[in-house]
Amino acid sequence: MKALQHFFEEHDRFAKLLGFKVEAFETGSATVSAVIQEEHLNAANVVHGGFLFSLADYAFALASNSHNILSLSISSNILFQKAKPSGILFAYAKELSDGKKIATYEVRICDEQESIIATFTGTVYRKEVSVL
Amino acid sequence: MKALQHFFEEHDRFAKLLGFKVEAFETGSATVSAVIQEEHLNAANVVHGGFLFSLADYAFALASNSHNILSLSISSNILFQKAKPSGILFAYAKELSDGKKIATYEVRICDEQESIIATFTGTVYRKEVSVL
Amino acid sequence: MKALQHFFEEHDRFAKLLGFKVEAFETGSATVSAVIQEEHLNAANVVHGGFLFSLADYAFALASNSHNILSLSISSNILFQKAKPSGILFAYAKELSDGKKIATYEVRICDEQESIIATFTGTVYRKEVSVL
Amino acid sequence: MKALQHFFEEHDRFAKLLGFKVEAFETGSATVSAVIQEEHLNAANVVHGGFLFSLADYAFALASNSHNILSLSISSNILFQKAKPSGILFAYAKELSDGKKIATYEVRICDEQESIIATFTGTVYRKEVSVL
Repeated sequence: MKALQHFFEEHDRFAKLLGFKVEAFETGSATVSAVIQEEHLNAANVVHGGFLFSLADYAFALASNSHNILSLSISSNILFQKAKPSGILFAYAKELSDGKKIATYEVRICDEQESIIATFTGTVYRKEVSVL
Repeated sequence: MKALQHFFEEHDRFAKLLGFKVEAFETGSATVSAVIQEEHLNAANVVHGGFLFSLADYAFALASNSHNILSLSISSNILFQKAKPSGILFAYAKELSDGKKIATYEVRICDEQESIIATFTGTVYRKEVSVL
Repeated sequence: MKALQHFFEEHDRFAKLLGFKVEAFETGSATVSAVIQEEHLNAANVVHGGFLFSLADYAFALASNSHNILSLSISSNILFQKAKPSGILFAYAKELSDGKKIATYEVRICDEQESIIATFTGTVYRKEVSVL
Repeated sequence: MKALQHFFEEHDRFAKLLGFKVEAFETGSATVSAVIQEEHLNAANVVHGGFLFSLADYAFALASNSHNILSLSISSNILFQKAKPSGILFAYAKELSDGKKIATYEVRICDEQESIIATFTGTVYRKEVSVL
C-alpha cells in the first residue's frame, strides 16, 4: 500500500496543484484532505464545485486502485449539500461493490465539524493490468 | 452579458487557476476552453477527471447564471468518454429546461477534432436574487 | 406519520401495480420491500433496472415527504451492483441533507442476504405546500 | 435488427407490463413510446419517476444491445424536467460513445408536443457474448 500511495502522491500532478493530502489508504478505502485556499473559490465566494469533485475523485482513484489493478473512472455523480468558504475538507472513499470488471464507490466530503459538504458516487472499469 | 461575463472572469478564482477561458456566452448557453497542461494530469498521464468536471462546471455556472438570476448547483453527473493527455478542450453548455426555481443544463466536452471527451448534466436552484 | 403513509399507499398507483410495501416510515427515512415476480424481469432474465429504480424512488418519495412538506424529485442517480432473478428486495432511504428548499437522499437496495443490489441518490425541491 | 427487436419485445416482461412499444430501432439508437395510464401515476397525480426511468432504460437497453453484443447497464442518471398527468411519451436513445468494453448513451423523453419531460444518461459494460 505504501508504494501505491507514493505512486499517486508522486504522479497525480493535479492533486499536487490543488494541495490534496492522503490521510489514510487501505484496500478498498481512502481518506484525503485539503485546505480551502482563496484560489479554490468561485464567483459566489465559496469553494468551487470542481474543487469538491476533484477532491472526491482523488479519494475515489486511490480507493479503486487500492487492489493494484488499474481502474479507470467511467462515470460519477455528485450532490452538493453545503457551501463552504474556508476550512479543511475530508473526503472518505469506500468500496460499495468489487466486481472483476466493474466496481463502485461512494465518497463523502465533510468539514472539520463532520457536516456533509458533498456526496459522490462513481464507477470504474478494471483493466487487466496492475498499477505498479 | 458583457458585465456578467466580466464578473465571472474576475471573481471565479478557481477558473483562473485552471486557465479556463470564456469563448462564447449567451442567454442559456456558454462555451469555455482550456489548454491541458502538465499540472492537470493524473497518475495515468491523462487529464484529471476533476479538471474535466471543473471545466464543464464553469460552463454550466455561466449558462445557468446567464439570466442574471443567482443559480446554485445542486447536483451533477459526468460520463468520461475519452482520455486525453494534451491539447485544447471545449465545453459547450446549453439549457435543457428553465423553471422558476429549478433549471437543468447539459455540457459536452470535446477536443479540437470534435471527439466527445465527457458528457455532463447538472441542475441548479434559482435564488430570488440577481447576480449583479 | 400513519396518515402520510396511508396517503402514499392509497394514491401511488404505480407502487401498487408493482407490489411495493412500506415496511418502515419515520421522519427522514423509509423502508420499502418488493417480491420479484416474472413480470418484473427484463430480456436477460434478471429484475429490470426500471423496477429497481422505481422501488428506490418510492422509498425516496416517502422519506422526502415525511416532513409533510410537498417534495418533488429533481434528479436521481443509480448504480447497479448485482443482478437478481428472484427473491425479496428491500429499499432503505435516508436523508443526507434537509434544506428549506433542497434536500438530498440516499437509498440502498439490498436482497434478503443484505447484499447490495443497487445504490440510488436523489434530490428534491420542497414546495411551500403540505402533503396532507 | 428485426430479430433483435423481436427478442426484446418477446422477453422483456417488464416492458410488456408497462405497455412500452418499440417505434424505431437502428444500430446505436432506438425510439420507444408509451401511453400514460392511471396505474402509472404517483400520489401527486403525475406519471411516476420510476415509469419515466423504466421507459428511458428500455430505449437504452435496445440501443446499447443493437450491435448484438450483450451490454449490461452499470449506472444511470435522470433529470426530471416536466410533470405529466397523461398523454403519450417518446424516449429517444442514442449512442454517445462505443468502446470495446464500455459504451455510453443518452435518452430524451418528450411528450407529443416535443417538450422535454426527462433526460437520462447511462453506461453499459459489453460482455464478450452476443445477444442472439
